[in-house]
Amino acid sequence: MKIQPVIMSGGSGTRLWPMSRAALPKQFLKLVTDRTMFQNTALRVCGKEDGAYLDPVVICGANHGAVVAEQLDEIGLQPAEIIIEPCPRNTAAVAAVAAAWATRKDEDALVLLMPADHHIADSAGFRAAVALGAKAAEAGNIVTFGIKALTPHTGYGYIKTGEQLIPSVYKVAAFKEKPEREIAEHYVKDGRHYWNAGIFLYKASAMLDEMARYAPEIKAAAVNALEKSALSDGALHLDEAAFSACPSDSIDYAVMEKTDKAAIIAPVDVGWTDIGSWSEVSSQDKTDNVICVNAANNIIRSDGPLIAAAGVEDLIIVATGDAVLVARRDNAQDVRAIVDELKKRGLQHLL
Amino acid sequence: MKIQPVIMSGGSGTRLWPMSRAALPKQFLKLVTDRTMFQNTALRVCGKEDGAYLDPVVICGANHGAVVAEQLDEIGLQPAEIIIEPCPRNTAAVAAVAAAWATRKDEDALVLLMPADHHIADSAGFRAAVALGAKAAEAGNIVTFGIKALTPHTGYGYIKTGEQLIPSVYKVAAFKEKPEREIAEHYVKDGRHYWNAGIFLYKASAMLDEMARYAPEIKAAAVNALEKSALSDGALHLDEAAFSACPSDSIDYAVMEKTDKAAIIAPVDVGWTDIGSWSEVSSQDKTDNVICVNAANNIIRSDGPLIAAAGVEDLIIVATGDAVLVARRDNAQDVRAIVDELKKRGLQHLL
Repeated sequence: MKIQPVIMSGGSGTRLWPMSRAALPKQFLKLVTDRTMFQNTALRVCGKEDGAYLDPVVICGANHGAVVAEQLDEIGLQPAEIIIEPCPRNTAAVAAVAAAWATRKDEDALVLLMPADHHIADSAGFRAAVALGAKAAEAGNIVTFGIKALTPHTGYGYIKTGEQLIPSVYKVAAFKEKPEREIAEHYVKDGRHYWNAGIFLYKASAMLDEMARYAPEIKAAAVNALEKSALSDGALHLDEAAFSACPSDSIDYAVMEKTDKAAIIAPVDVGWTDIGSWSEVSSQDKTDNVICVNAANNIIRSDGPLIAAAGVEDLIIVATGDAVLVARRDNAQDVRAIVDELKKRGLQHLL
Repeated sequence: MKIQPVIMSGGSGTRLWPMSRAALPKQFLKLVTDRTMFQNTALRVCGKEDGAYLDPVVICGANHGAVVAEQLDEIGLQPAEIIIEPCPRNTAAVAAVAAAWATRKDEDALVLLMPADHHIADSAGFRAAVALGAKAAEAGNIVTFGIKALTPHTGYGYIKTGEQLIPSVYKVAAFKEKPEREIAEHYVKDGRHYWNAGIFLYKASAMLDEMARYAPEIKAAAVNALEKSALSDGALHLDEAAFSACPSDSIDYAVMEKTDKAAIIAPVDVGWTDIGSWSEVSSQDKTDNVICVNAANNIIRSDGPLIAAAGVEDLIIVATGDAVLVARRDNAQDVRAIVDELKKRGLQHLL
């Protein structure tokens, strides 16, 4: 059975300001390769010769339907559907909409739910992991992807493996929130904790069943919003009143931590990175529009202005035509505070 | 007798890149107050009610005649003359041209030669110092202005006082190059060394006499270039062939260190600053286009783009529409290396 990719592209990515903007969030930028992260997410599975994947479904915000269509066209892909969220309602709602959409054709369709803003260096390795996970998903499990924890990262969630189902696939023993440093160090050493990649593989009917059990309001609102959806401008617009009524929760909280169907493929070693802040983006400092003098270990990016850095180290320097960010590399989260301050000052046009 | 101000405005000010550009050097920018440094230099002495000063003569580069006229007009002043240097030949040539120009009307005219890019907080105090120096200048001395050395600055030249002529005016005992730190510390303590403000007050005939003695080639070339000069576009253009033949030397080397007519007013305590690098420019960090989060002690300036600084200290951050500088505050001289690199890369349009 072919797998149905569903790309979650609703994020705003404020921590990658000033390049990431409300009108063009980070997933639509060429931050890591010469394709955007959204394009790379689609190409990772679609358009391959083996034809193991259906055309992608993309779920995105109201302002981004056009850019999704354009960016897919640019890489020679057609969307199976572009689904517009009238408002953000977090990942549980998206997982439910994806499942409900897929059951229109086949209630046992396998859905591969992927964030649009992750970088995965080894696409073939990722597809191999999906193929492995498909067996567990067909058996009714909701499959997660456990990335080998290379560092005691305190910005990621972790998953603890339980009983082995088949080689490299386990039941989930527990989901762990972003941990304190000491706990994360313990996780890295004990060999049973993996980074939660935020990618899910499930049979549409299985997800809807678990939703009915653990998050019935979310399921009802999502199904209702899809039933009342309308096609316009080449995209399927979820009904605003129905979708607004959906509780906002993550799929991890709403379902995964509660269900006994959670499984994990581990270790998945595919060069995965959540491009969540500038510290995960490589520097452009060898390009024509960057000059460094006695400057080292900086992340420097410009989409236009020349950046000249002299005598500085461990900084993030990002310039666009109308804004410049200078922050410490070890404190990339400060960008959020900047964005908050911009909102407070009413400078929405810079967001 | 009225004093003839002559403003030396030939500098390029590369250390204040990226705001200071070849087309608009630092003296024509509003870096310190809401007037440009050039305008402040003119207003410091001209247009006062006492009428002690003649209209200013401005000596500037070929590309800057128009901006000089425009900026004088903006503050309600008329130039006595705008003199265009076809090429830069350092301050000795400028001092000679100024003297030769002044003798056309009166060979004993008192010339006040001032760089266009210094900041002086106390204009009235400065005029009082000039009035005091005028007596020594009328007696044939070439008068310098000795600024009380507030710190052991290693980027300034120093002047050592000799025999007292009248209260607060001394013969010069010696000129000192930019000193090493330890020597500068000694200067600050001993009470006989002052910062050389680079401002000169002299009788035109006295300067030409000393030039004839110590720098005859410079004098001859400057006088020749002025004699062959031509008026066009509202400015007096020095003859290119004649002026090009002038040796390039500073007035300190060519004349002041050799003549026995050098005098110094000291101490001159008027809040003088040579705006030579970003470390002498105050921050704009309270303005609308700067946002700081956990950031302190930075010099932040923008002529357009919003600058957001997070978690950083002791930096210089300067942004224009096409370039961004990030440097260490204690290493403002690095900007020169940046400018050299821009030249090397053929990025003249950014200079």
